[in-house]
Amino acid sequence: MDYKDLVKGLEEIVKTHYYKVMGKLKETPVLITTLEGTINLSVLKGGKLENLAKSVIDVASPKPQLDYVPFTRDVEKGKEVHSVYTVNLKGEESEVSSPRKRVTSIAYDEKTIVYTASSAESTSLYVIEGGKERKLADVPPFLYISDVDGEYVVGAEAFRGGLRASEIVLFTLDGEVKYVTPKEGSVNWLPLIYGGKVYFTSDYEFSGERSWIYSYSLKDGNIEKVVLKNLEEFRPTDLYYDPYTQLVFAMKDGETRLFLGDKMLDTPEGVVNGATVIGDEVYFSHSSLTSPHKVYKLRGNSLEVVIDSKSPISGKVDFVKVKNGDVEVPTFIITPNNGKKEGVVYVHGGPWSEIDNCWDRFISSLLYLGYTVIAPNFRGSTGYGNKFMLMDIGDVGGGDLSDIVKVRDYVIEKGIVDKVGVMGYSYGGYMTLLAVGKEPDKWEFGVAGAAVADWVEMYELGDDFFKGFIDVLFNGHNVDLMKDRSPVTYVEKVKAPLCIIQSQNDTRTPAVPVLKYCLRLQELGKRYELHLIPDMGHLIYTVYDIVNLIFPAALFLKKLEDTKGG
Amino acid sequence: MDYKDLVKGLEEIVKTHYYKVMGKLKETPVLITTLEGTINLSVLKGGKLENLAKSVIDVASPKPQLDYVPFTRDVEKGKEVHSVYTVNLKGEESEVSSPRKRVTSIAYDEKTIVYTASSAESTSLYVIEGGKERKLADVPPFLYISDVDGEYVVGAEAFRGGLRASEIVLFTLDGEVKYVTPKEGSVNWLPLIYGGKVYFTSDYEFSGERSWIYSYSLKDGNIEKVVLKNLEEFRPTDLYYDPYTQLVFAMKDGETRLFLGDKMLDTPEGVVNGATVIGDEVYFSHSSLTSPHKVYKLRGNSLEVVIDSKSPISGKVDFVKVKNGDVEVPTFIITPNNGKKEGVVYVHGGPWSEIDNCWDRFISSLLYLGYTVIAPNFRGSTGYGNKFMLMDIGDVGGGDLSDIVKVRDYVIEKGIVDKVGVMGYSYGGYMTLLAVGKEPDKWEFGVAGAAVADWVEMYELGDDFFKGFIDVLFNGHNVDLMKDRSPVTYVEKVKAPLCIIQSQNDTRTPAVPVLKYCLRLQELGKRYELHLIPDMGHLIYTVYDIVNLIFPAALFLKKLEDTKGG
Repeated sequence: MDYKDLVKGLEEIVKTHYYKVMGKLKETPVLITTLEGTINLSVLKGGKLENLAKSVIDVASPKPQLDYVPFTRDVEKGKEVHSVYTVNLKGEESEVSSPRKRVTSIAYDEKTIVYTASSAESTSLYVIEGGKERKLADVPPFLYISDVDGEYVVGAEAFRGGLRASEIVLFTLDGEVKYVTPKEGSVNWLPLIYGGKVYFTSDYEFSGERSWIYSYSLKDGNIEKVVLKNLEEFRPTDLYYDPYTQLVFAMKDGETRLFLGDKMLDTPEGVVNGATVIGDEVYFSHSSLTSPHKVYKLRGNSLEVVIDSKSPISGKVDFVKVKNGDVEVPTFIITPNNGKKEGVVYVHGGPWSEIDNCWDRFISSLLYLGYTVIAPNFRGSTGYGNKFMLMDIGDVGGGDLSDIVKVRDYVIEKGIVDKVGVMGYSYGGYMTLLAVGKEPDKWEFGVAGAAVADWVEMYELGDDFFKGFIDVLFNGHNVDLMKDRSPVTYVEKVKAPLCIIQSQNDTRTPAVPVLKYCLRLQELGKRYELHLIPDMGHLIYTVYDIVNLIFPAALFLKKLEDTKGG
Repeated sequence: MDYKDLVKGLEEIVKTHYYKVMGKLKETPVLITTLEGTINLSVLKGGKLENLAKSVIDVASPKPQLDYVPFTRDVEKGKEVHSVYTVNLKGEESEVSSPRKRVTSIAYDEKTIVYTASSAESTSLYVIEGGKERKLADVPPFLYISDVDGEYVVGAEAFRGGLRASEIVLFTLDGEVKYVTPKEGSVNWLPLIYGGKVYFTSDYEFSGERSWIYSYSLKDGNIEKVVLKNLEEFRPTDLYYDPYTQLVFAMKDGETRLFLGDKMLDTPEGVVNGATVIGDEVYFSHSSLTSPHKVYKLRGNSLEVVIDSKSPISGKVDFVKVKNGDVEVPTFIITPNNGKKEGVVYVHGGPWSEIDNCWDRFISSLLYLGYTVIAPNFRGSTGYGNKFMLMDIGDVGGGDLSDIVKVRDYVIEKGIVDKVGVMGYSYGGYMTLLAVGKEPDKWEFGVAGAAVADWVEMYELGDDFFKGFIDVLFNGHNVDLMKDRSPVTYVEKVKAPLCIIQSQNDTRTPAVPVLKYCLRLQELGKRYELHLIPDMGHLIYTVYDIVNLIFPAALFLKKLEDTKGG
């Protein structure tokens, strides 16, 4: 393939748009889009998207009865230093707060905006009322606010009291705090207030295997199960319930089924990442591993594409569960049409995230280059129950790495591919470097973006939120285990050629330990390349960010391919 | 410009071929070409190029009476660790020696191959006779062999006895050494043996302003001036004389005139980088700053293109001399058609090299991107007399940097461009980093390839040849001056966004000091990007090497351009 053809296809992939229906303001659908090369807040009017605000990071869940919504922006080139703004349906913006901290969650109602923010020292919950801001409370780093309604602010605190638990937290605006849990040690999540009740999901009845929807009465404290018979039959692993519209997003094995109340809607295979109801129409955004994001309108049984997209790639999606001892590793295998017999184990980030059947620009780039992509949901992944998700605590880079290696061996043994490289971003970049260091004979190459090279140094450079994150991952501040699970410890064993991509302003997986890892590779005479990218942090905001990540990887792979055996 | 259009044009530039007529073997023209993406030794047969040997580094001057030629190859991926081979007109190769050292010069006749090679400790002259190799002598690092004929090996030793001198050295194969100089302190160069005489160039009659051709009689030691009246009228600054064919390459102000004996041949404007005579035909290779390499055949007054090329760019070439105190800085200014009002000061490597009117893939890439290229031949450049060339000794990064800054100010003052960046490779990369550190307000951006970041650490990592090189540049081992002239000393003052490109296997300007410089940039929060390239050393051998250097620079510039003011 010539460079111009290579870049032509990659450019199409890079420029596919992301759409996510966030909800509605006054019967107008509100979406996150990437229409102008950045992440924007947009509205859908007359079948067309209009931008409300550019370069948006996080958006509060829109309130249907209001005509504005608060959001955050990164004010230091990817360093995740945020300010808080509001924008109304006319596109009028105002900055309401400049905490210049990492804002980790945000919510609002007609009177109040609340948000949590982390600095180097601490995480706090702030309240803005009538233009005045005050700190309501210092909170643990993993407390996320999801709603405010009148007197009450509601959120969920992960890893509370025993690392595997997550509880609902209720604040009153005069500073009282109350924890709500249907059962000690259960995982309770995503609380929203509606009609005097807090709706949330919990796995307490299903021992961490799957979740269901419950309500907590603000009046009498009663916890009730929400009864939805058809949904129950589907047996979703994870759910998201919007009490305003009665939409339920039901997730299982990397697919989403959308329910309106108890009625399963006729959405295409893949992932519905957002939806809202306007009158008798359901607007939803959707994609799959081989089809970029589109926006649909469903009225009765009539499905219409409102915002279309064209796929630059084509291929076949398989879903298998690969046994690794007692663990089953749910794995997507995506085979491009007319590809080669070479594969890439693509490791997702997080670790508390997943590869589901939705569009991914990294995966589609690999498919475009002719690689079969093998995407394991190793232990620690979301989407397969909280027990599975929390198995990696205290064992990062242990069981999860063994899952990845097992899946790699599986695709070789089954003859699906002849050779395998490994690639990933963030936690996936970490896994990539660890895999080529600890299992050097398994991989043809490694492509690691925004990788963890050294947990110990990363901890020292982290803010309150990321120190907390690492403490949770390692089940406390366990320096010996952090060293044992750091790629820099195994740098001498690396055999596979490496392509390392790192953003300069990354405040999650910072650049300095990665540069030091590369200095070691250099001194040891290992074959590697490094692309250090400025004006960018850990998160991918713009088309340039994607280009900066995908192009070097693609050129690295092209060169490996072209110079095979020579 | 879309990425696909950007890459399409760059790919055309990257894939333009290099041709250099080296001479002839048995009436067959021998050329260096880049036909198959690497540097090859080729022959011209029936108007077509045929490859004799792939991945060639250095080739001895071909002997017309023989049907083979020795050459060197890099056997460690760009580390400039060489082996010596021969290849004949049938393409039959054999490896004749594996010194695994940096071979710095090579020559041969029907009985003997001689070469000089540097290791970490020393540089030696080796002789291969009848398949047997022996060391003839340890030699200084800057002694270059250019011919062997029967009993005599001839070369030139630069920087002998007083750094500004260069003398002819004559070895006999039984180990006697004799220095020949027409005048103490003069610069004598490029000796070739023909008809019992050693022909060479010298500047002794013109006080380092320009050179002429002389002969030294092996019989009686007489030195005679070669009389060529028309050539004398042209007043060339530098010359290269081939006594076998009587071709003279006469260079002045970045242009070459080709003479056959005393007759000036009708070659196009630009640079003739090689030629030979076959019967009554002259074959020569040629290019200019706006026209890639071609091979021509000249018969009488009839000029024919034998191997053609198409230019991916178009523009206007101006040549000016910019005053900087007592020094005039010869400068090429190349303005692309339909370009923008932005310029790049492109600093050549060396420092003992020059930008002349010949094709350059870096410059043409910048023109393609719409930049006006300003290429100063700062003090220390070749092509303008030895006095000018040696002015930088003991003052690297001093007067030469002031020349570059002066030329930058000149193009701004004259309104030729509104803004200027700086870019260069090797010594040009060094100048780039030094310029953005010492003159931070002058530059919009910097692109530095294979840069010197720290002379002190580079010295420690260098072999005998490069330690010698640095000692010459600094007029002795002057550590204080080395620190004062190292970019790392000024890293805190850097303002311009930087794109740094570095090869992993570079043994001239090694990667470690550059990585450490980047670590400092990172710690200081400077805006920079780094692309560290594997499988490549200092020299540019393959299409991949060029892609690896040019693409990151072009993407960096595109992003700067696209995100202007935002």
